[in-house]
Amino acid sequence: MSHYAKDFPILNQEVNGNPLVYLDSAATSQKPFQVIEAVESYYKEINSNVHRGVHTLGTKATDGYEGAREKVRRFINAASVKEIVYTRGTTTALNIIASSYARPRLKEGDEIVISPSEHHSNLIPWQQVARATGAQLKYFPLEPDGTLDLKKAEETITERTKLVAIAHVSNVLGTIFPIKELARLVHRHQGVLVVDGAQSVPHMKVDVRDLDCDFLAFSGHKMMGPTGIGVLYGKESLLEEMEPFEFGGEMIDHVDLYESTWKELPWKFEGGTPNIAGAIGLGAAVDYLESVGMDEVDAHDRRLAAYAVEKMKEVEGLTVYGPTTDRTGLVTFNIEGVHPHDVATVLDAEGIAVRAGHHCCQPLMRWLGVSATARASFHLYNSEADIDRLMKGLQKTKEYFGNVLG
Amino acid sequence: MSHYAKDFPILNQEVNGNPLVYLDSAATSQKPFQVIEAVESYYKEINSNVHRGVHTLGTKATDGYEGAREKVRRFINAASVKEIVYTRGTTTALNIIASSYARPRLKEGDEIVISPSEHHSNLIPWQQVARATGAQLKYFPLEPDGTLDLKKAEETITERTKLVAIAHVSNVLGTIFPIKELARLVHRHQGVLVVDGAQSVPHMKVDVRDLDCDFLAFSGHKMMGPTGIGVLYGKESLLEEMEPFEFGGEMIDHVDLYESTWKELPWKFEGGTPNIAGAIGLGAAVDYLESVGMDEVDAHDRRLAAYAVEKMKEVEGLTVYGPTTDRTGLVTFNIEGVHPHDVATVLDAEGIAVRAGHHCCQPLMRWLGVSATARASFHLYNSEADIDRLMKGLQKTKEYFGNVLG
Repeated sequence: MSHYAKDFPILNQEVNGNPLVYLDSAATSQKPFQVIEAVESYYKEINSNVHRGVHTLGTKATDGYEGAREKVRRFINAASVKEIVYTRGTTTALNIIASSYARPRLKEGDEIVISPSEHHSNLIPWQQVARATGAQLKYFPLEPDGTLDLKKAEETITERTKLVAIAHVSNVLGTIFPIKELARLVHRHQGVLVVDGAQSVPHMKVDVRDLDCDFLAFSGHKMMGPTGIGVLYGKESLLEEMEPFEFGGEMIDHVDLYESTWKELPWKFEGGTPNIAGAIGLGAAVDYLESVGMDEVDAHDRRLAAYAVEKMKEVEGLTVYGPTTDRTGLVTFNIEGVHPHDVATVLDAEGIAVRAGHHCCQPLMRWLGVSATARASFHLYNSEADIDRLMKGLQKTKEYFGNVLG
Repeated sequence: MSHYAKDFPILNQEVNGNPLVYLDSAATSQKPFQVIEAVESYYKEINSNVHRGVHTLGTKATDGYEGAREKVRRFINAASVKEIVYTRGTTTALNIIASSYARPRLKEGDEIVISPSEHHSNLIPWQQVARATGAQLKYFPLEPDGTLDLKKAEETITERTKLVAIAHVSNVLGTIFPIKELARLVHRHQGVLVVDGAQSVPHMKVDVRDLDCDFLAFSGHKMMGPTGIGVLYGKESLLEEMEPFEFGGEMIDHVDLYESTWKELPWKFEGGTPNIAGAIGLGAAVDYLESVGMDEVDAHDRRLAAYAVEKMKEVEGLTVYGPTTDRTGLVTFNIEGVHPHDVATVLDAEGIAVRAGHHCCQPLMRWLGVSATARASFHLYNSEADIDRLMKGLQKTKEYFGNVLG
């Protein structure tokens, strides 16, 4: 564990008789006490519904909720808080873009381009848009190491391409996709670029104005924030022209028996009582990450990934997937002859938490030619010592299954 | 404050130099320490993503998340956990019914019937369905005291009525609508009954099998649970035939490049990482309410409402809206010549939190012939002494504005 680990109370425990090594941050990150206490204080001191209250608690809750929005705006360098819509998470954010932006605008003859490495959340919504509108779903070709060749991407994007959707960082391969360059290509043809930032925003400096993406979706729970809160960033001009996704309280201006009009941004997209505690906890997570500095977070996570890849390369029969350089804090792998679920099970007996399965990327699994993989993913609280523990566990796994199989 | 108040840490504070009297539970309830601690323990001990993990924390988080679902099932007496879908709240639940059930099924010539007292969340989704499908939106007539005459309701519901949507309890009038009888009327014509349970589930025993409603929507945050979590109950046969509302991870069975199939209920409707801490906190809220007993909660809240109505009737120039008997724990009122925002502001200076505005019920405000009202709403932690404080505050309000105006 790194010296940041002391901020994360959950890590101070034993699992199956061994000190916990948590290597599953790409699924969800752990939370520093600063975030846990922000949620707790909300409920113990200022809990109230937002926006509608004249009373003191209502004002404090609203200030906390809207103050967190400003923190998020600054964190991704959006031009305005109007561009920051709270959602339940990345999945909801991507579905809002698909339903409220793409469906009413795309038509037969148009093309949507995504990558075969997309998480299901950035894939199925586009299958659904294609089916509903008659637009065609196309895939970028991936290089054998899971990277994107910009020349080939340029050929894939045409004047028919109305929308390109891609993860900033692959949750399986660790590939960092060239968002800034893709934005240029997409905009050349007047398309929009949708970025799934679930695996990038928690680990590196993401500047939406520098990237010039049109939409960015990300989740609080992967960036040390609470569950049930996420963000849809969209350029104001695009959000402005979109219809709401959900209808209800707090997103309306005027309601008649048969007609209604909507509030201004961002509340137009926030019908119903929001996850107030979640938003305030997300604000605390942003504070925490900024107190460390995103450059430091980025360097730390890359260093661990590079260290893990280097160690894993030394292990016979172990395959690491994805690019060898320029990757973020996760390593996906398989051990020859051992099912990844068995790898995860043996590691769990050692107190080491890794994930095994298709990682919500079934098409990518087929592209890799496997049914599943194991994945170790890192965050600020991890250290080289955790990876050494992982490597020992993998040796044990090999020995155990070598004996069983041999 | 009642003797339950000791369980609610937020109530132990002064606001503007006076002990806090929180009378805004219909907007959001306060949380007992049992709920706050359940959320805290989740983050400090078992935080992990659900369903996908082989490791110990993943299993514990999944057990907590699914265990809470079983608690909710038992709480509303649903037949199966397949009928309990976690959502962000009531608004999302109602939007899922509108989008996934009603839109693909209704057509021109069909009718949707709702009440003029509906919250915007149970009104605008049906305006949108009517607009999209050509179905007609109709309104029950309300009696002058805000109740429903079942004879007139029977005349409103015809063989064209495919869907009736109504709140179990009005968030403004406190009216308890006769759901069981309405279900019989609606089913006679093969329609479905959608119940907005936001204001009933937190305050009384709601048994979906006894009521025989087809859908029920409610929010955790109004029933002493966390923000950002709610429930869509639907009869299994109906949920089974509905398409998902959001597409992404965890709701799929098989994903191909161009086609996907869905998981079984209830996960088909739970794409993406859910609000795990929220669900577990909701389970703790159910435990808390059950430890008191819903009959006791119901009796307590009705007793307070009756006491408040009685006291308010003695005040000259004060109008109470809604039925005089058979109402739950909220009282909506106006003081002649004083804007409800001013009422709420004066009360806030006394440490008393009430809500003022249209309460997300603009059509009902017009029906009442007012632009806004003040509302005092109660829960288990309130007592007659809180209402005495409120009455003193209202006397002060009258005196202050009497002097200003007079």
